[in-house]
Amino acid sequence: MMDEVLKQITPTEAETREMKEVCQALIGLVGSEMSRLGFDVQVAVYGSVSRDTWLTHEKDIDLFVKFPAKYSKKELEDAVTLVGEKILTGLEKRFAEHPYVRGIFSGHPVEIVPCYRVEDAKDRISAVDRTPFHDRFVRDNLGGRHGDVRLLKQFLRGIGCYGAEARVEGFSGYLSELLVIRYGSFEAVLKAASEWKRPASIDLLGDGDGARFPGDPLIVIDPTDPQRNVASALSLQNFSLFTFAAKQFLKSPKESFFFPKKRVHSKDVLAGLLRRRGTEIIQVSFQTPSVIDDILYSQLKKAVKLFEQMLVKSGFTILNSGSSAGENTVLAFELEHRVLPNARLHFGPHVNSKNELDFVEKHRESKKALGRPFIRGERWAVFVKRETPDAADFFKQFISSKKLKKKGVPSYIAASIEAGFEIAIGESVFENNREFYTQFLDPKFPWENSDV
Amino acid sequence: MMDEVLKQITPTEAETREMKEVCQALIGLVGSEMSRLGFDVQVAVYGSVSRDTWLTHEKDIDLFVKFPAKYSKKELEDAVTLVGEKILTGLEKRFAEHPYVRGIFSGHPVEIVPCYRVEDAKDRISAVDRTPFHDRFVRDNLGGRHGDVRLLKQFLRGIGCYGAEARVEGFSGYLSELLVIRYGSFEAVLKAASEWKRPASIDLLGDGDGARFPGDPLIVIDPTDPQRNVASALSLQNFSLFTFAAKQFLKSPKESFFFPKKRVHSKDVLAGLLRRRGTEIIQVSFQTPSVIDDILYSQLKKAVKLFEQMLVKSGFTILNSGSSAGENTVLAFELEHRVLPNARLHFGPHVNSKNELDFVEKHRESKKALGRPFIRGERWAVFVKRETPDAADFFKQFISSKKLKKKGVPSYIAASIEAGFEIAIGESVFENNREFYTQFLDPKFPWENSDV
Repeated sequence: MMDEVLKQITPTEAETREMKEVCQALIGLVGSEMSRLGFDVQVAVYGSVSRDTWLTHEKDIDLFVKFPAKYSKKELEDAVTLVGEKILTGLEKRFAEHPYVRGIFSGHPVEIVPCYRVEDAKDRISAVDRTPFHDRFVRDNLGGRHGDVRLLKQFLRGIGCYGAEARVEGFSGYLSELLVIRYGSFEAVLKAASEWKRPASIDLLGDGDGARFPGDPLIVIDPTDPQRNVASALSLQNFSLFTFAAKQFLKSPKESFFFPKKRVHSKDVLAGLLRRRGTEIIQVSFQTPSVIDDILYSQLKKAVKLFEQMLVKSGFTILNSGSSAGENTVLAFELEHRVLPNARLHFGPHVNSKNELDFVEKHRESKKALGRPFIRGERWAVFVKRETPDAADFFKQFISSKKLKKKGVPSYIAASIEAGFEIAIGESVFENNREFYTQFLDPKFPWENSDV
Repeated sequence: MMDEVLKQITPTEAETREMKEVCQALIGLVGSEMSRLGFDVQVAVYGSVSRDTWLTHEKDIDLFVKFPAKYSKKELEDAVTLVGEKILTGLEKRFAEHPYVRGIFSGHPVEIVPCYRVEDAKDRISAVDRTPFHDRFVRDNLGGRHGDVRLLKQFLRGIGCYGAEARVEGFSGYLSELLVIRYGSFEAVLKAASEWKRPASIDLLGDGDGARFPGDPLIVIDPTDPQRNVASALSLQNFSLFTFAAKQFLKSPKESFFFPKKRVHSKDVLAGLLRRRGTEIIQVSFQTPSVIDDILYSQLKKAVKLFEQMLVKSGFTILNSGSSAGENTVLAFELEHRVLPNARLHFGPHVNSKNELDFVEKHRESKKALGRPFIRGERWAVFVKRETPDAADFFKQFISSKKLKKKGVPSYIAASIEAGFEIAIGESVFENNREFYTQFLDPKFPWENSDV
């Protein structure tokens, strides 16, 4: 079965040949354009293509332009922009820690990444300066286990854990390569993972200090830079998921781990699930902010957490929450009840404290009080009227109030919501985003999706 | 105003004379009956009557029969029972730490309490052996401030804090006397109390150790026995209430502190209050167990707490709870919602723990699961179907299941419920116990009851 999988994900000879030709052409073009602009640079392709660990459908090329340290970041940016405009179609400028350009060349998505040429990864000026060193380490140590890396990457992709970006919070290609180097084979990686206890620590050269990364579930010291945890992007959730998937695969290997089926319930099925649960869904949707995915997804996670805390603080019980970003972005919250009673128990100061009379007088006069202040144990308490007992109203009021950024909503989400949003409740939320809601209301592991 | 109050609560000369005559007659009769039975005893009246701190409507007489230590408890009990049967009408036998008898003599409720004659309160065999020493201490130290004691007692009665019994959890008569002795007058007691910080500690002879009574809000070392806190029965709630009432009285003294009005809303008013709150009331009622009040009320408090914990553990949110014992006993709980959703979030073991597969397999097969087990962070979780989402059904099922005592329900309550109970919800609970529900839904301090 694994051979069958490998056949599907390994580039053919023809594909490999074509990829090499495209890379050479690209290196030649970029190199001569850089010279023409007067820059003294080296041009090379790094990443999975150069390491021969790319998957057949991954046609992306990462082209690095290595500048001497004498140039400023601005000069690097301007140079790759000029060259990108000349050579690539559909050019986009991207800004991570470092600017780079992205476009299409001969049918391949290409990133032209400027970096500094350093002697040692530890001397890096920018994070991307490490990449050439990663390349060398993998080439020197992988020893022909390219197939194992491909299987591991496809396995991770299948279970939804492939990629260090904020959308995924999973395993990068480089991390997959290091795991194969460390354990020796795809199956040896799964076997090790199925026994990992948090934190699992891997230090190939023995020069790192795992204690530097408190809270990280997996610590893999970068052999080119002991200051760095290659697995720092991995979430606890995906760490857990991977260890369980590994165990399940070893017990009964199936192709569905590598090639899961999509699962999208109809609106009726989703409505039926919701009715059976007897819970309430409240959804806010708005236009997806135009910002790179890494920022978008990390802000979405923060926004969901913030809104959840705010709902909980106001007395609602949240069972589940999540977000989905496509054309529109939705944040979804599953509540025990949409409507709370009018009466809310409000605790005040201790009896016999300095400000007790303020509290008592205030609530005796107040129109919001449902009854008089009373003593419970040694605290003052009073039942007050809830302004907005309906979660939908409450949520709407909160996000209509503007100043969302001040309230802790991440900037791009705040701006987008302030430009316009919709609150939806109940079954109407299933008009769109049905794939998201399928997993939200009826979770299955991807490899189980082929089951009835 | 205080003179007016004092006039209403101080026994008239005629009343005092009558009381003395009754006491003397009683002492004579009991003494000669004891002699006739061959017992070598002393007979005396102690308590507020002997100390001249009784209130005009308190006609109770506490008659003590002091036996030498050579007699067994059984002999004491038999002796006072025989004598009680001869002298009192409507005899009841009561059992506290110590048996005693209760009946009527010449229109006065009388308790005949057997105790041991000891040289020092510290040598007591039974708790009641202390009483003669209390009497002597108060007589020796009160110095004519009987009116102050009477005012304090009536004040405590008015605000609902008079009595050390489990029903009240307040201040005993002896404690009131000690407070007047310590501070000098009724108003000085209130002044001191309005400044008390928990724990407030009073040690008249300076021979006690307040640290022996952790958690007690008020510590008053018994001058006849430094091992004992005279205020040990006082609840935190009543400690707090008294300090606040004291402060309010000093600010604006009113007769309503001493003589509060009863307050009972009509069924319609109560129903209106409940609707306005938007909450749910659930009530269980059963026949009041025939057991002395101290045991009844302490068991009621425990039962309410236990049922409340059980409801909370099952996902219900409790805003208020209480109990009332008359002909029937009711336990009442005010909930945010009566019905929870079908779906209940159930957390399981950690991912990659030994028993994770048991959990996953169990819930995959289970008909109770609403969807598959999933991973949340590093824990397994699954939504399961709630068997009884309605609090009324849930509660009914719990208390129908018998074995209540095994589940922690105090013995007399458990037995009474098992003999038959009723669950009521919503406005129907206002058919009875309207005074209780008036305070439950619309709390006011007793001294405010004359306000509109």
